Amino acid sequence: MISVDFFKQGMRRLAAGVCVVTTLDEGRRTGLVATSVTSFSADPPSLLVCVNRSSASHDAVSRSGIFCVNILSHSDADFALLFSSAATREEAFASRSWRELETGAPVLADAVASFDCRIIKQEPFRSHTIFVGEIMDTLLPNRDIEPLVYMGGSYMTTSRRQPRQRELAMVDRIGFSDL
Amino acid sequence: MISVDFFKQGMRRLAAGVCVVTTLDEGRRTGLVATSVTSFSADPPSLLVCVNRSSASHDAVSRSGIFCVNILSHSDADFALLFSSAATREEAFASRSWRELETGAPVLADAVASFDCRIIKQEPFRSHTIFVGEIMDTLLPNRDIEPLVYMGGSYMTTSRRQPRQRELAMVDRIGFSDL
Repeated sequence: MISVDFFKQGMRRLAAGVCVVTTLDEGRRTGLVATSVTSFSADPPSLLVCVNRSSASHDAVSRSGIFCVNILSHSDADFALLFSSAATREEAFASRSWRELETGAPVLADAVASFDCRIIKQEPFRSHTIFVGEIMDTLLPNRDIEPLVYMGGSYMTTSRRQPRQRELAMVDRIGFSDL
Repeated sequence: MISVDFFKQGMRRLAAGVCVVTTLDEGRRTGLVATSVTSFSADPPSLLVCVNRSSASHDAVSRSGIFCVNILSHSDADFALLFSSAATREEAFASRSWRELETGAPVLADAVASFDCRIIKQEPFRSHTIFVGEIMDTLLPNRDIEPLVYMGGSYMTTSRRQPRQRELAMVDRIGFSDL
């Protein structure tokens, strides 16, 4: 087994989109900032998020059975900071526009993309719970999709590589063919 | 429920590091290209990967109980293409240098980072299996860590944002504090 420091140093090299996961706690809006979101399956369309069981919003997600994953854009670093602390989360909610789709979980009106989910599996394991959410509805604002990316211990944006035919072909093969 | 096309269109907006997941199939090297890798917990240091049950390497991962996650660098797009097809996977293995750490799963010698894992949980659910691997050893080559990122239907690299104190503070709070 490796040390926690070495683990963190390694995992910081895994690039990940930064998301705000929202839910309702007996009607009150709450949520967390997460980088542990990944697509799960196309049948049914679903995604997965890992939440620390000691996180303040864990039980609300678990009890409500719903959550919305909102992918943040490159301009959302300050918003994510506000959202990440319980003390300023209400301020974060108040600072932006929100919608509702199918489940009633708060949907950030201008996220890069939002996925409104109903939980179809909860799997507690050690410190975390794995939530799989069936995507009931999706909001894809028609705008620049440059996301906020966490990598190497800081925030990054993405820059497109030179398009090359082999790479484009490859996207078809590895991107979501595995779903 | 949303359409599969709409689902894929949405999930393409979630940036993800591109990884090669390797294992041994009765001693023979095999694996798959995956973007569905995320950190899981710091206690014990562990990560999670979702693998389609119809993937050729799924059963080898499941049976062997070991895998290695190798994070690809920005220059590895061609390698990922080779690795993604069973027909050229041996060629992909032959084209690079590999090592062994604790488990014996193939470790790419010059990945951005490699995590050698022993499976501590396998959770089949619908089309996929969720594998949680305890990280037995990690290889962090001392070099540029610019990764290959999949987003928006193509490969990207990351570009560092202007460092700002609030963002750096935020990294501490949301990066891996949730682990």
